[in-house]
Amino acid sequence: MSANLLNEFEDTIVALATPPGVGAIGVIRISGKSAIEIANRIFKGKDLLSQKSHTIHFGKIVDQDTVIDEVLISIFIAPKSFTKENVIEISTHGSPYILQKIIKLILSQGARLAKAGEFTKRGFLNGQFDLAQAEAVADLINSDSKATHMAAMNQMRGGFSKKIKTLRDELIHFASMIELELDFAEEDVEFADRSQLVSLITNLQKEIGKLIESFSIGNVIKNGVPTVIAGKPNAGKSTLLNTLLEEEKAIVSEIAGTTRDIIEDEIHIEGISFRFIDTAGIREAKDKIEAIGIERTMAKMKAASIIIYLVDLLKEGENEIISEKQKLDAMGIPYLLIGNKTDKLNGSKLRLLETAFPEMIFISASGEVNIEKLKKALIHQVHLDDFNTGDTIVTNIRHIESLTNTQTALGDVLKGIDNNVTGDFLAMDIRQALHHLGEITGEITTDDLLGAIFSKFCIGK
Amino acid sequence: MSANLLNEFEDTIVALATPPGVGAIGVIRISGKSAIEIANRIFKGKDLLSQKSHTIHFGKIVDQDTVIDEVLISIFIAPKSFTKENVIEISTHGSPYILQKIIKLILSQGARLAKAGEFTKRGFLNGQFDLAQAEAVADLINSDSKATHMAAMNQMRGGFSKKIKTLRDELIHFASMIELELDFAEEDVEFADRSQLVSLITNLQKEIGKLIESFSIGNVIKNGVPTVIAGKPNAGKSTLLNTLLEEEKAIVSEIAGTTRDIIEDEIHIEGISFRFIDTAGIREAKDKIEAIGIERTMAKMKAASIIIYLVDLLKEGENEIISEKQKLDAMGIPYLLIGNKTDKLNGSKLRLLETAFPEMIFISASGEVNIEKLKKALIHQVHLDDFNTGDTIVTNIRHIESLTNTQTALGDVLKGIDNNVTGDFLAMDIRQALHHLGEITGEITTDDLLGAIFSKFCIGK
Repeated sequence: MSANLLNEFEDTIVALATPPGVGAIGVIRISGKSAIEIANRIFKGKDLLSQKSHTIHFGKIVDQDTVIDEVLISIFIAPKSFTKENVIEISTHGSPYILQKIIKLILSQGARLAKAGEFTKRGFLNGQFDLAQAEAVADLINSDSKATHMAAMNQMRGGFSKKIKTLRDELIHFASMIELELDFAEEDVEFADRSQLVSLITNLQKEIGKLIESFSIGNVIKNGVPTVIAGKPNAGKSTLLNTLLEEEKAIVSEIAGTTRDIIEDEIHIEGISFRFIDTAGIREAKDKIEAIGIERTMAKMKAASIIIYLVDLLKEGENEIISEKQKLDAMGIPYLLIGNKTDKLNGSKLRLLETAFPEMIFISASGEVNIEKLKKALIHQVHLDDFNTGDTIVTNIRHIESLTNTQTALGDVLKGIDNNVTGDFLAMDIRQALHHLGEITGEITTDDLLGAIFSKFCIGK
Repeated sequence: MSANLLNEFEDTIVALATPPGVGAIGVIRISGKSAIEIANRIFKGKDLLSQKSHTIHFGKIVDQDTVIDEVLISIFIAPKSFTKENVIEISTHGSPYILQKIIKLILSQGARLAKAGEFTKRGFLNGQFDLAQAEAVADLINSDSKATHMAAMNQMRGGFSKKIKTLRDELIHFASMIELELDFAEEDVEFADRSQLVSLITNLQKEIGKLIESFSIGNVIKNGVPTVIAGKPNAGKSTLLNTLLEEEKAIVSEIAGTTRDIIEDEIHIEGISFRFIDTAGIREAKDKIEAIGIERTMAKMKAASIIIYLVDLLKEGENEIISEKQKLDAMGIPYLLIGNKTDKLNGSKLRLLETAFPEMIFISASGEVNIEKLKKALIHQVHLDDFNTGDTIVTNIRHIESLTNTQTALGDVLKGIDNNVTGDFLAMDIRQALHHLGEITGEITTDDLLGAIFSKFCIGK
């Protein structure tokens, strides 16, 4: 730990912990050596210095003779707090004016404004949790679906860290055998059976490979699936989008006050978010589409992970559909072929098309027919059904980088064994692999790395 | 208290207490008989039923086998809480998804969503504070300046209620004398000296009159002063507005995260908010102003409480200014006559105009000269300097209605004494006056009145 970090710890930090804006209550958090002393100087009611940890106290925050607010003060005495430092939480009336006044008052008493993520950073540096767990705190706060929530919760509660620790322990065991050899180097003994080593490393590579692979799911979980609804004008694209979105809006507005203000072009299916990319064809009037041309729409389609391709069953025949399928196949992006307007189609044409295109899903966007089937197909497309809920899923690009670097170093170890290099060279590559695994949980850190991680947090966390 | 209200008390209510949106933490509040039992059923960590009041407990909120969040739970045991009921506050990670999940879980355990202001309403009905104090809670949350904050804080801490109580006590003393007479009505005794009664009522009327008058300030404090900057094209109106606003923006953005997102056309001077009404002339380009014409601007000016009338000293001469003054005088709205561009004016013309228009304030909007003098003049215009900070200021229109009705009833008492009506008629008018005073602090309430008051609160308060 650098001297710089130790110096930071002398400070007492303060920030608003609740979202900005007007609410019933707002909470200000103070952490550091002087947290309780500072709170005590601006609090009238009782002596906070003589109170037990995890107790709540009613009183007034005063600036000289002016009462700023009647508040509840929660006391957490080190190390029994989120940061493992002394922590004070002041619960005030939720007026931005009052919150600002009190924060200013605390600053005037010698605290300084916390930087983004600084409370969590202190928790990490004081050994409350490891780095992967700290990162999960931010993911948890930003979680907005069942899948993001579960992945973040699993990571915060140490599921991922445990997995990494197991891998690291195996590698350390391996390293210890190699290093034992180095101690007896002059005697030319091999403590570690080379073929056993190869099988251990190969196993580790397999485990890490599975984690790296899980990112295809992890990324989908965290960032959602870019989705495009395409098709000819009047195929029913905006009707389908509205049908999908309206149900979503009904769900999310069920409990007033707790949901985001605007849900725009995003639906959740089995906890996965599908974000609809607006193509010229989706939202605009017909004449405008044709004016802008399909070129821009094509570019958007190429940015999508999934294309929902709508066919107007009333207007398009077998040959036309075949030609559209060929274009879609050429693009190389997963797509769902959807036949729309079944409710207005005569039965014989429908049966004909069902036979000709067994993979096509037949729906009525306006009549809300087979929408559930369409949703199931979307989930199937992102291969979510390949994974079990018990699997550890990596959602963080930083972790993937470290895992990939670990994998490379392990590859070097294998090559070294193949080429009969000496133990000290093997030990170097193993240390490299351990270094990269250690970056994930924070055994190995730099100020730059920590800065990059915690600057992405919100202030107050 | 009606049976309906008693029934409501059987319920346990829940709501989000912090502002909606993403933050470091969010707080959910539960109040009612079953608050602790309900929390205990979804909490893993320890038995909440055996904990002391005003203590904090770390643990997990679980929905069957799924961990929804790691939380801190604060326990307040009746009557030592805001509502005087059992209260639980759950401090969670500030993810709207998590908050919604937990609220849903609590609802499934038998609580119901709180209505707007319902926590405060329960506090009032359980005798935690009177009605005027309860109303001040909402004002406090919405306070956004020194003046609104001080007025609300004074009212919440009981300053206004005490004043009303004093008036009421005097009136009750008066009523008791009259009613004593009624008991001895057949003996035709006058216990209450009529001239003493007249002087008592006159005094009460004077006190109440002062409270009613204070509303001219109270209203300004609560709602701000509608202000218009007017003047000919290019007089420097938008430059002046920007000069006034820019300083404001610098002040309010001093502490990140605690201020409102947008400060638009509003400045605070000595804690009073001046809201600038946009006239066609203020923000638009010159050609557009002339196109729209001055008619619309005139309408806006008539809606203003104060007009800042800007004169372009470089272009306008004495006669022109006199003619503009006449038009402003005819409008009957308070105005400040401001001469702009002093920095570009030659000294002799300036001295000439200073002599001709002693009331004019000479500024340079772009050079920021005499802006402070302009601000002082604005404050003087709203007569804020007439009031002392110790004075009770009425900011609530409901209170003004009750005070005015009290005043009318007292007038009837005086008329009655004048006309030598019998004691029982006097007693009736006095009871009427007492009724209206009682409405303010909530000794007299109806379900409708309470409904109207608390529906204006936010949910969670």
